[in-house]
Amino acid sequence: VARTNRTGSGSSGGELAALELVRSVLPEAPPGEVWIGDDAAFVAPSPGGLLLTVDTVVEGVHADLTLVGLDDLGWRAVSTAISDVAAMGGRPDRLLVSVAAPPETDLRVLYAGIVAAAHRHGASVVGGDLSTAPLVSVAVAVTGHIPGGGPPVLRSGARAGDSILVTGPLGGAAAGLRALRAATPSSLVDAHRRPVARLDEGTVARTSGATAMIDLSDGIASDLRRIAQASNVGVSLECVPVADGATEHDALCGGDDYELLFTARDPGPVRDAFSAAGLRVPEVLGECTSEPARILYGDSILPDCGYEHPWEIPT
Amino acid sequence: VARTNRTGSGSSGGELAALELVRSVLPEAPPGEVWIGDDAAFVAPSPGGLLLTVDTVVEGVHADLTLVGLDDLGWRAVSTAISDVAAMGGRPDRLLVSVAAPPETDLRVLYAGIVAAAHRHGASVVGGDLSTAPLVSVAVAVTGHIPGGGPPVLRSGARAGDSILVTGPLGGAAAGLRALRAATPSSLVDAHRRPVARLDEGTVARTSGATAMIDLSDGIASDLRRIAQASNVGVSLECVPVADGATEHDALCGGDDYELLFTARDPGPVRDAFSAAGLRVPEVLGECTSEPARILYGDSILPDCGYEHPWEIPT
Repeated sequence: VARTNRTGSGSSGGELAALELVRSVLPEAPPGEVWIGDDAAFVAPSPGGLLLTVDTVVEGVHADLTLVGLDDLGWRAVSTAISDVAAMGGRPDRLLVSVAAPPETDLRVLYAGIVAAAHRHGASVVGGDLSTAPLVSVAVAVTGHIPGGGPPVLRSGARAGDSILVTGPLGGAAAGLRALRAATPSSLVDAHRRPVARLDEGTVARTSGATAMIDLSDGIASDLRRIAQASNVGVSLECVPVADGATEHDALCGGDDYELLFTARDPGPVRDAFSAAGLRVPEVLGECTSEPARILYGDSILPDCGYEHPWEIPT
Repeated sequence: VARTNRTGSGSSGGELAALELVRSVLPEAPPGEVWIGDDAAFVAPSPGGLLLTVDTVVEGVHADLTLVGLDDLGWRAVSTAISDVAAMGGRPDRLLVSVAAPPETDLRVLYAGIVAAAHRHGASVVGGDLSTAPLVSVAVAVTGHIPGGGPPVLRSGARAGDSILVTGPLGGAAAGLRALRAATPSSLVDAHRRPVARLDEGTVARTSGATAMIDLSDGIASDLRRIAQASNVGVSLECVPVADGATEHDALCGGDDYELLFTARDPGPVRDAFSAAGLRVPEVLGECTSEPARILYGDSILPDCGYEHPWEIPT
């Protein structure tokens, strides 16, 4: 347990100075609420049930700081956590941001990305903590609610015969990352650097008949399997929309697109609702089958080529 | 961005196996709620306003894994996060647990400590995430509520003339850590290994007239300063209760005791309420003064010898 003594109140370093900096870049709490600066935040409750989720971005695992900025890492931590709320058909309300990072980390830059992403998604950072650590990692916990109340869309609601839809073309983030690595200019770089949660799409999917939903963080080949497993169905995929500049392999196996994959009994009203809301009309990719765990792409078994952390579990 | 392909569904490794393991050690959600296994948890709201806080424990910074177990690290992450809820006079409800750790980490042991601490404090782990990382870190976000409703106890409510009280003797955790390092048997080792949040004490303090409150995580010399600063008062400390086996320096400068430090206009009814609740009666340590930022211990200025992370802030 490494412990240091403070360096004196006139110093420019130290935890208090770091906390002051963080406070200075975050918005003020409205009257009646407590945000940053006490032991815990105290906020008005969201209407109805409470959505809760957390997502962590670790330097070198989820974000390569030789390719993207600290602000991009902060943005990603917020956006990917909020994407899980979108995948329930919900809206985010409050964020708790836990930063662990080396002492020399430029917190101003990191928090600029955090605050920008919170603002972009209509959420407020109400608390968090700071620790020193050898690498940068940012864990973002989110509270959210279901607009208009009612149950969220789970992964487990798909039935045989349901259509499978996706909110946009895939593979853009993987292709953008490849372009960054090759130092090639590409319009897809921002798909990797600054993912955006599909909140409007999630809400419209929920209210127009989505039966199961997930956000595509690890690649459709993996994430589709999660819906199939949770719903005890199989999948027959006919096509996958590929982003301009991406390959079919990017679209199937690349993660980080954060489009929403969902199922619906009848895709017609769903597509109409997206159109009426001014959103890109989701494409039908195939349908759910009654053969659990069987994931077909055309006539072939689709390999699970998505991302998985290499955990070693003793048997 | 390190990405690996999955090793096949028959493997004992991989993220899915890790998630299954975590699921198997966590309790089931009650009907109508969604806990582990979907994109987000969906839970019944707590009554009244929502307390929100997060705390992170990093291997080598907050927990030395050559001295304590992975289960102790997990316990600490949960307990210290919940301690922040205690310091508002609240009760914890739900936990989101974000684990980043090397792939060979024994998640069973880590989660045993997490689940035991959640149970000990009456809270439920409803969600979380797992990432690989070079070091173990655990971020725990907590939702909570104020029993019976009403506002929480902030750090900013102390006024000149208020008494300063603490819920128990200090320095035990620092002395316990020293004993661990020296491999000396000591009854204080558990004060370091398994801290417990003072939830009952926080509730009774709030309902019996606490005007400001904080949990002692960084040492009284630091944490008292935070109350003084937030409340714009000074402090005149007459005495500090020292745990058996600890030194006065441990009590003043050692962190991790998680006793609650609070202020009250009139300590009499507060002490009576603790006694009536069957709790150790808090000691009066001194009083708040009208000289902001002046922290006296007897006749001397009390140095800020508590723990601070060594952030480097560019000026």
